[in-house]
Amino acid sequence: MNLTDAVKRLLVGRKLASNQLGETLLPKRIALPVFASDALSSVAYAPDEILLTLSLAGVAGFAFSWPIAAGVALVMLVVVLSYRQTVHAYPSGGGDYEVASVNLGPHAGLTVASALLVDYVLTVAVSVSSGVQNAKAIFPVLVGHEGVVAAVLILLLMAINLRGVRESGTLFAIPTYGFMIAVLGMIGVGLLRIVVLGEPLAAPTAGLDVAGDPFYSQLEGFALVALLARSFSSGSAALTGVEAISNGVPAFREPKSRNAATTLGLLGLVAITMMGGIIALANLTGAKMIDEHAGVVFLRDGVVVTQHQDTVMAQLAQTVFDGFQPGFVFVIVMTMVILFLAANTAFNGFPVLGSILARDGYLPRALYTRGDRLAYSNGIILLALAAAGLVLAFNASVTALIQLYVVGVFVSFTVSQLGMIRHWTRHLAVEADPADRRRMLRSRAINAVGLTFTGTVLLIVLASKFIYGAYLAVLAMAGLFFLMKAIRRHYDRVADETVLDLAEAHTLPSRLRAVVLVMELNKPAMRALIFARASRANTIEAITIAADPDQVEDLRRGWDALSPDVALKVIASPYREVVGPFVAYVKGLRSGNPRDVVMVFIPELVVGHWWERLLHNQTTLLMKTRLAFLPGVITTAVPYQLASSRYAIERAERSDAAEWRRPGTGTVHSGAPLDD
Amino acid sequence: MNLTDAVKRLLVGRKLASNQLGETLLPKRIALPVFASDALSSVAYAPDEILLTLSLAGVAGFAFSWPIAAGVALVMLVVVLSYRQTVHAYPSGGGDYEVASVNLGPHAGLTVASALLVDYVLTVAVSVSSGVQNAKAIFPVLVGHEGVVAAVLILLLMAINLRGVRESGTLFAIPTYGFMIAVLGMIGVGLLRIVVLGEPLAAPTAGLDVAGDPFYSQLEGFALVALLARSFSSGSAALTGVEAISNGVPAFREPKSRNAATTLGLLGLVAITMMGGIIALANLTGAKMIDEHAGVVFLRDGVVVTQHQDTVMAQLAQTVFDGFQPGFVFVIVMTMVILFLAANTAFNGFPVLGSILARDGYLPRALYTRGDRLAYSNGIILLALAAAGLVLAFNASVTALIQLYVVGVFVSFTVSQLGMIRHWTRHLAVEADPADRRRMLRSRAINAVGLTFTGTVLLIVLASKFIYGAYLAVLAMAGLFFLMKAIRRHYDRVADETVLDLAEAHTLPSRLRAVVLVMELNKPAMRALIFARASRANTIEAITIAADPDQVEDLRRGWDALSPDVALKVIASPYREVVGPFVAYVKGLRSGNPRDVVMVFIPELVVGHWWERLLHNQTTLLMKTRLAFLPGVITTAVPYQLASSRYAIERAERSDAAEWRRPGTGTVHSGAPLDD
Repeated sequence: MNLTDAVKRLLVGRKLASNQLGETLLPKRIALPVFASDALSSVAYAPDEILLTLSLAGVAGFAFSWPIAAGVALVMLVVVLSYRQTVHAYPSGGGDYEVASVNLGPHAGLTVASALLVDYVLTVAVSVSSGVQNAKAIFPVLVGHEGVVAAVLILLLMAINLRGVRESGTLFAIPTYGFMIAVLGMIGVGLLRIVVLGEPLAAPTAGLDVAGDPFYSQLEGFALVALLARSFSSGSAALTGVEAISNGVPAFREPKSRNAATTLGLLGLVAITMMGGIIALANLTGAKMIDEHAGVVFLRDGVVVTQHQDTVMAQLAQTVFDGFQPGFVFVIVMTMVILFLAANTAFNGFPVLGSILARDGYLPRALYTRGDRLAYSNGIILLALAAAGLVLAFNASVTALIQLYVVGVFVSFTVSQLGMIRHWTRHLAVEADPADRRRMLRSRAINAVGLTFTGTVLLIVLASKFIYGAYLAVLAMAGLFFLMKAIRRHYDRVADETVLDLAEAHTLPSRLRAVVLVMELNKPAMRALIFARASRANTIEAITIAADPDQVEDLRRGWDALSPDVALKVIASPYREVVGPFVAYVKGLRSGNPRDVVMVFIPELVVGHWWERLLHNQTTLLMKTRLAFLPGVITTAVPYQLASSRYAIERAERSDAAEWRRPGTGTVHSGAPLDD
Repeated sequence: MNLTDAVKRLLVGRKLASNQLGETLLPKRIALPVFASDALSSVAYAPDEILLTLSLAGVAGFAFSWPIAAGVALVMLVVVLSYRQTVHAYPSGGGDYEVASVNLGPHAGLTVASALLVDYVLTVAVSVSSGVQNAKAIFPVLVGHEGVVAAVLILLLMAINLRGVRESGTLFAIPTYGFMIAVLGMIGVGLLRIVVLGEPLAAPTAGLDVAGDPFYSQLEGFALVALLARSFSSGSAALTGVEAISNGVPAFREPKSRNAATTLGLLGLVAITMMGGIIALANLTGAKMIDEHAGVVFLRDGVVVTQHQDTVMAQLAQTVFDGFQPGFVFVIVMTMVILFLAANTAFNGFPVLGSILARDGYLPRALYTRGDRLAYSNGIILLALAAAGLVLAFNASVTALIQLYVVGVFVSFTVSQLGMIRHWTRHLAVEADPADRRRMLRSRAINAVGLTFTGTVLLIVLASKFIYGAYLAVLAMAGLFFLMKAIRRHYDRVADETVLDLAEAHTLPSRLRAVVLVMELNKPAMRALIFARASRANTIEAITIAADPDQVEDLRRGWDALSPDVALKVIASPYREVVGPFVAYVKGLRSGNPRDVVMVFIPELVVGHWWERLLHNQTTLLMKTRLAFLPGVITTAVPYQLASSRYAIERAERSDAAEWRRPGTGTVHSGAPLDD
């Protein structure tokens, strides 16, 4: 079994197959890259967004990049510490949805779920958009086509995931470590050259002046607060993905919780280091980003500079490795790859969350079982289309998309922290051991600090981004929330309606009447008759509809020669219909004897190509649908496999093999009963 | 039974219900409007197209409108005479498709059918476009939006036909006679004022000069021939629809053939009179049309006049009734209505032809029975979308669309005439009676003249229109031809494959094993178990898939308490799939005993709303599809009707009532067997 599979399965949080998974549990060195790509990749765009927002205040604004980055790092620290508590409290890896549902009730769980679903879409959109923005540094041809390129990449990701990609831990580990080496290496070389060797490195944008927005440029009072809030909100995108490890605890080697907590700490450390290093380098080299859409411009000697601006990552790599092209290309390529991987994690996470929600009745049941490839695929397609729509609508502008992002993550963080506090309070009420109580009190205090921080950030994010786009994310969340509630209400109603009534559980029908529809005298019709005979019904009759009188005469003669023991009844149909008269006849059969059961046997051709389906069985389909509404009537389509059906069988078996008999899974999946 | 229904049914040419239709047979005065709207409506655009094409040669070109109109009238006369022979020879109303198939073989029939299908689409597009062009005279606001308005009108027609319009003979008669009164009245008043009273009536375009195409303006040699050929081809659009009566002979009162032939003669007379009258009036009043798309312009005193031009009908009505607004409005409104009716006849004819082709295996079988509303609707939607696409692509320009039109009609005419010659030759070979032989020889001679004329026109049309658009129609016909051949080949192959093998006709399975899928312990599951018991299989077992181990435990306990006599087997599913393991299990059951039959019973919820279908039975659907491919396995979805299903039942019964229990049909449609 490959690692991603293991992770996906375990995320769903069921003990079923856990005893078979021992061999695939993750050591920390593999777990870190598996869970880190999403969290680390945000380093590729969060610093850009901090600087870009500060550019509204002109060059003077960039002075605030230090405190903003420090603030984001502080929140990251608090969130990491908080989630270490979650990791210890929920070693089953339930994730924020479970924490919220268990401790705060279904509405809180549903709030978290809505937020996460929206954020999966945005993770894909933002990550791929940022990848395209970074790629422009080595593929200038992309400039002007960002939206379309990003959409195509998302559809490519969709295609890969629809085919069922065989990712392994290694596949995750190489680029993630590659990215860490690239970024940390770049920071190290940069700091070495500047601080130790004293070289005067200058970014391409170092000498430029910036003409910001007059309102923000005053840098005092409300303007200053608003500027810092917006910049901080955008920077807090760096926190997305930190919670992933708390979902994956069962995938860790023993001691699971401690290993997961250590890995989480490592992840936080690496992310904070990267983020701080990039902001430091940007300050030291004078690298700048400006918010072009807000009308901010670069000036050189008072004249507006109109040129495409590279991302901070590209500017720094160019500056630090200036003259050493491979270093520059390595940083950009690794950044692109990790962003692509981060988008891919959403393609794994979205159907998994969908499965959990389906289990709880909030989404169509069919999404629950992973075996239903159709439904699983629908989730992937839905995610891809939503994300592709977003990148097209916003032309793959990370700055625009980031306004919608982060809200969901912080809703989830905040509700989850509240849930953790409730969790500890519940356990404290029954815990007597003083040492355990102390530990719980400390955990609760940490989660309380976490709640304060994440709640505050959520408010800042909402206040500073709402009119710039966050309202769209909030609307989408509210829509999903009410949709999922409606689905659950429907399932509850159906469950009430179908609850077992013991009185009728064993009532057998008084008589079984078999009716075979015969429209042609051929093998499929005879097979239907054979099955009707095999059902040993009290009466069997063959019915044909006189849609074409010449044909009916031939049929009747042939029938009498062949099966004189079963009467062939001819139903009049002056309008040359088949369905209506047949349904009316079957209805009539039942009306006299309500305790009788009528079994209708209809021949059906099984075909192998989609276009053959247009040519066969349309009437059968309509008839089955109509008959399904008659109580006491059950319809059996007796299949006759045409030769072409083997193509479909082969297709089905090939995809079966790919889907649930993956090599090296170590489980026998034979369809054999557990007991007999 | 209403008349349109009667006509539609009889067009299909089956004797089945004919004995019940006596009361609804059409007198000539009603038959004329029922069948004439298509043929007469072309008078609304054919004269325009004649004049417009002649405008290529400048003002001098219009002098040829007389001979062109006379030529079209002559061909019309020949076609009418020829079809009178068809009416006598095929009183069953088989139409050109039957004439060609019976006498010349299936390829000829298919050629005619392809041509007719394409022409149905063009009838809708051209008629509605012409209606919009005429409407502009009283609704100038339409100018510039012709394409969209025409497309909307076509979609409106589609909606009306999808709902199942209850046209009656009267509905056809009023506007058709109204149109005849309007046009003949206009011609009469116009001729009276000009010829008898000597008033100098001048059309709005009378005083204008025309700057044509230098090539055609030379009016000699090839240019003249090309001009006349193009003008004649466009004018021959007046002949479309003439063949309709030959399809409808059975709808006439006795003596059917003679009445139909008389009506056909009347139709020809009226059409020729209208056409001649309009061309005469246009010449007398100086009404002109120019081909704006070909760069022809009106000149006044040498200066280009840029104004929207009205149709010939609108110009003449304005001129003749000048000062009497109601007369003008009456002509235009009647023209619009008859064009709309003409388009509507295609909506009736298209599915009828589709039904005949489906009967012969050239189109999906489902199109055969009119009872399958789904398929019938598909035909209407297909026709509407194709026609709407055309009017949008050509911006409802009759001049552009007419280039595609007419080819199909003349292919059909020509092949049909050839078929009639073969018909008489066949009959002459066996006919001994001298009087009959004389009659047949005369008929054959008339059809030979018909063939000569229609064949010549077809060549003229092809030669003069091919590069202007007719090639598109030819391509579409060829595409349909090969598609229908492929469909027929497929059905033949399937028929060969399913031909009855007497040896296996009576082989009963050795054992019947019933398998019930139980995923929840509820009413639907119990109902499935009851049906499995009722089938009296040799063995019955209940199967559940261990997708969720907690649920399985509950289920097992509940089951043991409830149905200890039927064993519940639990199938392992480490991947939380349902379909794969169950299908594998059923497959395994069969593999040991190939003569056994496995009956699978799956509970299925019957719901009433489309959205409920998204929430239920997805897994069941997938499972049924997969199980259908296993030989010796039949799957019965045991329906459990949820309360909401009554909405769907009500809908189905309402539409049943509308569809096949129309008031006053005089037939009892009870679904009762003819014999028992």
